[in-house]
Amino acid sequence: MNILKFEGSKATLVGATIQRRLIRTNNLMTVIVDFSGGPMSEPDPYHSHPHEQTCYIAYGEVLFLEEGEEPVRLKAGDLFAVASGKKHAIQLLTPTARLIDSFNPIREDFL
Amino acid sequence: MNILKFEGSKATLVGATIQRRLIRTNNLMTVIVDFSGGPMSEPDPYHSHPHEQTCYIAYGEVLFLEEGEEPVRLKAGDLFAVASGKKHAIQLLTPTARLIDSFNPIREDFL
Repeated sequence: MNILKFEGSKATLVGATIQRRLIRTNNLMTVIVDFSGGPMSEPDPYHSHPHEQTCYIAYGEVLFLEEGEEPVRLKAGDLFAVASGKKHAIQLLTPTARLIDSFNPIREDFL
Repeated sequence: MNILKFEGSKATLVGATIQRRLIRTNNLMTVIVDFSGGPMSEPDPYHSHPHEQTCYIAYGEVLFLEEGEEPVRLKAGDLFAVASGKKHAIQLLTPTARLIDSFNPIREDFL
């Protein structure tokens, strides 16, 4: 059975302010991304990847930015999606936030 | 920009107790599934689909069942994943719950 229980699970630390926990199948990966240290005074740098992405905001608020588009403020319960190769960024607007990111194909760089 | 703001969004009703809201890219779909009317006295019938699936429990508690495995109790913050074609079911253990389901490929039957 392929499960992850949050309590007692080990996070991958990304810098000092991001914790990542994930589950995967062959072609699908879902990542719990816990941010702290916010709010951020400016967005993270734009980045892109060939993977298609969806994101559910579990708590907190973020500014979601996509190249060539007006930034949009999203909060708990909202969703965004990113096409393959599209440049995007987020800016944490609250002290903490949790994003649930899903990717197809899987992010080999997260393993 | 491909976003869904929960407030004001229209849900697809599945029976009297399930509301579904979704976002998708070409090959990836993420669905907010809001359950009410729980707890359930027994699991939903087992079902399967060729799509790979992940699930994040946003709130509430569920029993996750997979054919041939011991059922496992999952709560907010936990994840499960289902391989292509694997029979599985859930049983709602709380009055309400929210599951964030992701699928590859997309569930054409949800469109």
